[in-house]
Amino acid sequence: MPRTATLAEQLAAKQREISVAEFFERNRQILGFDNPQRALLTAVKEAVDNALDAAEEAGVLPDVSVEISKDDSGPDRYRLVVSDNGPGILRRELPNVFGRLLYGSRFHAHRQSRGQQGIGISAAVLYAGLTTARAATITSKVEEEEAAHVLEVVVDTQRNLPKIVSERLDLWDRPHGTRVELVLKAKYLRGRQSPLEYLRGTAIVNPHARLVLVEPDGTRTTFERASTEVPAVSKEVLPHPYGLELGELAAILKQSKEKSLAEALPKRLAGVTPRALKEVLAQASLTGKEDPASVQGPGLERLLSALHSVSLLPPSGESLSPIGATLIKRGLRNVLGELRPDFYAPPVSRPPRIRGGSPFLVEVGLVYGGSLPPDQPIQLLRFANRVPLLFQQGACAITTAVESVDWRRYGLDQRGGQGLPTGPCIVLVHVASTRIPFTSESKEAIAEDPEVLKELQLALQATARHLKAHISRQIRRQYASEKFTIIRRILPQIAERTSHLLGKPVPDLAPVITEIMNVVTLETAAPETGPGLMVTITNYTPRARVLELFAEMPPELVSTLTGTPASDGTDPSLGRAWWTLPKLAPNGQTRMELRWPAGTDCDASDFDWYIAGVDESRLLGADALPGDWDVRLPRQVIEAAEAAEVASVGAGPAAEEEVDYDGAEKTAGLEEDD
Amino acid sequence: MPRTATLAEQLAAKQREISVAEFFERNRQILGFDNPQRALLTAVKEAVDNALDAAEEAGVLPDVSVEISKDDSGPDRYRLVVSDNGPGILRRELPNVFGRLLYGSRFHAHRQSRGQQGIGISAAVLYAGLTTARAATITSKVEEEEAAHVLEVVVDTQRNLPKIVSERLDLWDRPHGTRVELVLKAKYLRGRQSPLEYLRGTAIVNPHARLVLVEPDGTRTTFERASTEVPAVSKEVLPHPYGLELGELAAILKQSKEKSLAEALPKRLAGVTPRALKEVLAQASLTGKEDPASVQGPGLERLLSALHSVSLLPPSGESLSPIGATLIKRGLRNVLGELRPDFYAPPVSRPPRIRGGSPFLVEVGLVYGGSLPPDQPIQLLRFANRVPLLFQQGACAITTAVESVDWRRYGLDQRGGQGLPTGPCIVLVHVASTRIPFTSESKEAIAEDPEVLKELQLALQATARHLKAHISRQIRRQYASEKFTIIRRILPQIAERTSHLLGKPVPDLAPVITEIMNVVTLETAAPETGPGLMVTITNYTPRARVLELFAEMPPELVSTLTGTPASDGTDPSLGRAWWTLPKLAPNGQTRMELRWPAGTDCDASDFDWYIAGVDESRLLGADALPGDWDVRLPRQVIEAAEAAEVASVGAGPAAEEEVDYDGAEKTAGLEEDD
Repeated sequence: MPRTATLAEQLAAKQREISVAEFFERNRQILGFDNPQRALLTAVKEAVDNALDAAEEAGVLPDVSVEISKDDSGPDRYRLVVSDNGPGILRRELPNVFGRLLYGSRFHAHRQSRGQQGIGISAAVLYAGLTTARAATITSKVEEEEAAHVLEVVVDTQRNLPKIVSERLDLWDRPHGTRVELVLKAKYLRGRQSPLEYLRGTAIVNPHARLVLVEPDGTRTTFERASTEVPAVSKEVLPHPYGLELGELAAILKQSKEKSLAEALPKRLAGVTPRALKEVLAQASLTGKEDPASVQGPGLERLLSALHSVSLLPPSGESLSPIGATLIKRGLRNVLGELRPDFYAPPVSRPPRIRGGSPFLVEVGLVYGGSLPPDQPIQLLRFANRVPLLFQQGACAITTAVESVDWRRYGLDQRGGQGLPTGPCIVLVHVASTRIPFTSESKEAIAEDPEVLKELQLALQATARHLKAHISRQIRRQYASEKFTIIRRILPQIAERTSHLLGKPVPDLAPVITEIMNVVTLETAAPETGPGLMVTITNYTPRARVLELFAEMPPELVSTLTGTPASDGTDPSLGRAWWTLPKLAPNGQTRMELRWPAGTDCDASDFDWYIAGVDESRLLGADALPGDWDVRLPRQVIEAAEAAEVASVGAGPAAEEEVDYDGAEKTAGLEEDD
Repeated sequence: MPRTATLAEQLAAKQREISVAEFFERNRQILGFDNPQRALLTAVKEAVDNALDAAEEAGVLPDVSVEISKDDSGPDRYRLVVSDNGPGILRRELPNVFGRLLYGSRFHAHRQSRGQQGIGISAAVLYAGLTTARAATITSKVEEEEAAHVLEVVVDTQRNLPKIVSERLDLWDRPHGTRVELVLKAKYLRGRQSPLEYLRGTAIVNPHARLVLVEPDGTRTTFERASTEVPAVSKEVLPHPYGLELGELAAILKQSKEKSLAEALPKRLAGVTPRALKEVLAQASLTGKEDPASVQGPGLERLLSALHSVSLLPPSGESLSPIGATLIKRGLRNVLGELRPDFYAPPVSRPPRIRGGSPFLVEVGLVYGGSLPPDQPIQLLRFANRVPLLFQQGACAITTAVESVDWRRYGLDQRGGQGLPTGPCIVLVHVASTRIPFTSESKEAIAEDPEVLKELQLALQATARHLKAHISRQIRRQYASEKFTIIRRILPQIAERTSHLLGKPVPDLAPVITEIMNVVTLETAAPETGPGLMVTITNYTPRARVLELFAEMPPELVSTLTGTPASDGTDPSLGRAWWTLPKLAPNGQTRMELRWPAGTDCDASDFDWYIAGVDESRLLGADALPGDWDVRLPRQVIEAAEAAEVASVGAGPAAEEEVDYDGAEKTAGLEEDD
């Protein structure tokens, strides 16, 4: 039957190689160039990520400017110019870096960086050429040269090679740096997925960078650097055996230059201590004297299985650059703008883990309540290697992890215990890794790797437990507060009417109210003028109390704090300060004034308040002192405070009971029913 | 400052090319090899998609077998064997097809196929090598050769080239075909994202294929072909100018062999008629005599803008292969298993549109109610080019489109009008295109292209309108039905007690009930034995009626239908049949029996019932005849039916009113209040 024969021939004739540039030109949606709006954002993102990576590698504080303007050569065309103060790129590398896909310096390095693929910026050049037939103009100057190289480059799609359209030398008024200019089909929109929001997100988690955006209408927005500390350059590390596949181990051994396996393993893999090496070799029935490249077949399989089962040194976090608790908190405040939540959960940072031989870690922050919208899905802020992820939320492991937590157990609404929960809540999640497993080359979503998912869930659950504790406290407080309000309003009315009925004088109700309420309240308010905080503590319990007050705040704030009364002590490293309050009689009140220098980035939500000297269930507006504080006032301070007031109140043997700090209230009195 | 200088040099030294195989090995999650479970499914999918494509190209009915068994060479290892009866692959092409990424025959063809990237199967070979260091064994035989070629192939990752490990000739007992054998790290699980479900989904939309799955425990499942019709091979078409980018037009003109632009345009682009050509050239200020390759710069831009604005021939659907209404309905029934919905919405198929020069079309099917779970998110079945999409639902434009419809307006629950709606509902969506814009190389989600999204929304809204009409009818019927039940139960009790009280005899209530209810009911039930359907029509209206009954059913069923009474007529092409019922007195009832051959794939849910002769608001269990039916019974038929009963009922001048088919009831009677 010659028909089928002809067909096999015909089909064979159609087989051919596909250039990677051709593939991505056709499938540009994979790179994030789906539509003109997203294309512009993707181009901005690729250029800015490169600029930040370059500055960090050079150890300089990044100074990045992004200018977007309308281009008159056609409809829907914009000109994008991104320039940085990085070390610059040598002339000989410029064409390949910008005009060739799958070319770069960070793919083969085991350390955290934004660009890991060698695709991003050349994809932007490709897209510009495709949609406007215009070359990219690249200017770059390295410090050791006098002038900058200015090249016009396009991607030769069929061969995936750069084509230089023109070249010249130019003077540039900066010592070193790179500038990319593209004309591309684009759409400029503001909103949640705009260049402005991308830069805002970037500024939040890169406070050492100065970012400037000039929008097409001329609006200039500057995100000034909030820190002048250059982040430690994340170190290159060796691949870790955990999660390594057979083929990868084979490639590592084949490339190793050591003479024996025993020499090669500790030098080519992380975590292999001398003791672990012995165990591994024994378990794999290998001597260690083998030529590394010769270990194949069953021997290789035994070696990998031994490496996976022997206990190795845990992964090091040196190659990772987490955001950290302080910046997560500050970042969230930045997002909030005018919104004031009433709870900042302590940020959770998980220890580094290994996935496919590469370390990663997860960080989570959460704010809740206050003026956040209560009846919408929670807002989720995703970051990977300090880059905000604005697209493909539905495809991201971070989203899957958030949705897999049963938030109903932690106090949020969630239909059927699935999907994004509803509530006045913002969750920030950061994944840092030397190799982020993105779902596609557009780097907008993290794949559902089992290891990453597990860490995300653990971090989210830890954060959710803080949330639950807060919501429980809040409910308890609210209950007490409502009871307080009702009693203060209704009891006097009842008393008045009863007295009137009986023709007797109205009794003083304050002691009765105190007896029923049995709480100590802490309220904060902004002072009438200047920056600072007014703190009022009232003793609505039926006995006199000596209370200790403790505050937790951003560490850098502690040393700048002034006010009356002065604190009894501070711990600037932990961001803590404490006070002994004057003895408070029943219904007694005391005020405290805290002041900090104008311009400090700080408000009431930065403080967590704790009170010792009264049971937790009697506190409104503050919490009981957590167990990890080992601050204890010297006994004599308490006694002195006590003595000062003792005469006026005339408390007898009860005084000793009142300063019992052991937590459980031994007094009788009305118990709260809940 | 030599430090920065050194740095630029150091950075330059690290720059290097990244092989595409190396890139995908590192980023295997992008290809769908995230974890052992998904990796197995992806490998099955790539092999089966290739097998189906090959059989269709050869015009043979596909016969594909998938065998998965545990491999003892290591833990978590499975052996996957996929074989087909396609035309086979020539020896010289085998290594590249299976051992090299970005190599294939379908990337450059403008027609609908499953594989479009030239990555899939070689990625599976790459993954197998990476995780088990084992070569893939490929067997292929073309009809013109006596023996099959058997090759063991691996991917040389660093060069992205095939490496042949061994080669031999072997006899194979089939005339032509291909067999792929892989040993890979995998996890075999049943459930929603399993090979079994993938093959089930594939069988649903490829009824011409015979698919066999042998699971690791030996379970053999065969999806027999439900149709022996080889689907028309989708034709290759020229790129359409709509949505074409400047760079793409430039490449087309550069590659054209015609001497002049006027010759090249109609031969290289779809839709350019002679009249359109004239308009385009005039609008672009071109003569048509230009050398195609010379059209560049402003001329090229004017040409593209003219091609985008002049009205061209609309896109042809010839290159597309939609599923079609019958198969969509059958596919949904297949998914349902034991579940019985009470509504099948008429499947909606949109006309072909163009996106980036390539045609695409959208089809939607929906079932609702019955025994589907009422309080869960709706089930969404996604298909692209007849391939089921099982992963990344959250990232897919189909999901975005479903979520963007305000289903509350169409009768489903949906929190805040956003997200997946809740309800007893399954929605099937198919996107067919010569170039599906997938979000990544794993081809599991469609990117949010504005054109595709718009078509999806239109198709979903059209389907949702059918749903809304059904739910409204259902609510109306339920209301009437409840009223009916209450009246039949309560009225006799009232009558009995009142009569008792008054000492009078209980009156006959039937006429009163009929007067109040004023409905005609249609009920269906399965016959006591054998396949078929019993239909009961009752006239609960206060007057005698001659009714016409119309049924709509799968077209192939019409000609096999028997039963009593015989129909007055049928239209097998539209799947319609109709009957004139004997005149029904008030409270009169008639039964009908329909029979079809045993083994026919058919049940009650395949029938839509319509009744003429009574107003729509008086119908329970059937609908008013839609306007697009032009079936009208000859007047004499009706008159004969009328005459037959007229004596027994003795209706006078009212008779004429009763056979008024104009829809609006002119009789007085009780009006429904709703």
